[in-house]
Amino acid sequence: MPATHTVNGVDLERLSATISAVTAEPSLARFEFRAGNQWLDGGHSRTTIKGFYGVGQEDTTRTEAFTVEADEPLVLLGRNQAPNAGEYLLQALAACVTGTVVYHAAARGITLDGLECTVHGDVDLQGFLDLDEGVRPGFEKIRVTMTATGDFDDEQLAELASLARFSPVRDSVSRPVPVSVDMVRG
Amino acid sequence: MPATHTVNGVDLERLSATISAVTAEPSLARFEFRAGNQWLDGGHSRTTIKGFYGVGQEDTTRTEAFTVEADEPLVLLGRNQAPNAGEYLLQALAACVTGTVVYHAAARGITLDGLECTVHGDVDLQGFLDLDEGVRPGFEKIRVTMTATGDFDDEQLAELASLARFSPVRDSVSRPVPVSVDMVRG
Repeated sequence: MPATHTVNGVDLERLSATISAVTAEPSLARFEFRAGNQWLDGGHSRTTIKGFYGVGQEDTTRTEAFTVEADEPLVLLGRNQAPNAGEYLLQALAACVTGTVVYHAAARGITLDGLECTVHGDVDLQGFLDLDEGVRPGFEKIRVTMTATGDFDDEQLAELASLARFSPVRDSVSRPVPVSVDMVRG
Repeated sequence: MPATHTVNGVDLERLSATISAVTAEPSLARFEFRAGNQWLDGGHSRTTIKGFYGVGQEDTTRTEAFTVEADEPLVLLGRNQAPNAGEYLLQALAACVTGTVVYHAAARGITLDGLECTVHGDVDLQGFLDLDEGVRPGFEKIRVTMTATGDFDDEQLAELASLARFSPVRDSVSRPVPVSVDMVRG
C-alpha cells in the first residue's frame, strides 16, 4: 500500500482516520461555522470568513480571512459588483453537492474524471416586496443537474446520484433549519 | 423633490417604480437565478454566476461572469483555498438579511448609519459522514445577530428586527424548498 492513497483528490487514509476518530468520540463531529457581514451601501455588503470550531478545537490553520462581496444587479437597484445573496445560496448548494459526491464516491472507490453541476432556482419577488402574503420570500423550487464523467457503470451512476442526500447544504435547504435573528443597537 | 431620492443607498424612486410595475403585472416578479459549478480536485470547486431571468427578460447588463471558489479546511481534507459550502450558506444568509433590512428600512424612511451581522451555524458531521442516521447532514440551528446604528427610536429598532422576515435566503433556510437532483453521464 502506498503511503498516501488518494481517490478524486481525497486522501482515503485521512478520511478513514477521521471516521474512526468520530466513531470513537462522536463529539468530534460537532462543528460551528461562522460568517461576519458588514453593510457597505444599498445592496452591497462584504462578508468575512475565517474561524470555525470543529474536531474539539478552534481552527488555527487559516492565516488570512476570506472576504466575499455581495451586491444586486441593476434591475434590483444594485451596481452589479458581485453576485446577490440568492445566487450565493445556489453556489453554496452547487459546491456542496459536488464536494459531497466527490468525497462519498472516493470512499466507495468510484473514480471520477469530471463532475459539473448547474443549479436553477425560481423565486417570486412579490414575497420579498411584501406585495402578496401568499407568496413566500424564498425560492419556490431549485433544480440541480449534475454531469459526471468517468469509468463507472450504470449502477454506480445511480449510486453517485443518490450520494447528494448527504450534502449539508442540500439538507439545510430541503428541510427546515431553525434560524434565530436578533437585532441590537450598536 | 430632488431628481433622485436615496435612503441607505437605495434609490426610492426606482424602488417605487419597481413596486408599481410588479403590482400592475405580477409576472414581472418571477426570477430565475443560476449557478454553474465545476469540480477541480478533492473538495475544491469553482462556480460561475452570470445570467438570470427577471422582470420579463434575460439580464444582459453583466458583462463578465463572477467566479466563486470553494474548498475545505485542512481538517476536512481540503487545502484552505476558499470557504467551504456551509460557510457560503451562512454568508448568503448574512448578506441577504443585511440587504433585506437595508431595502425595507429605506422604504419606511429609516436611515441606517451602519449595519453588521454575525452568523453562527451548528452542524454535526456524523450526518454527512453517514455515521448516525438520526443526525441530519445539514445545519441543526443558525443564529443571526445584527447590530444597527443610526438615529432611530426603540420602536423603529423593533421594526428593523422584524424586517428580516422578508429575506429570501432566511426563508429558504427556515422553511423547506423542494430541491431536485438529477445526474447524467457526461
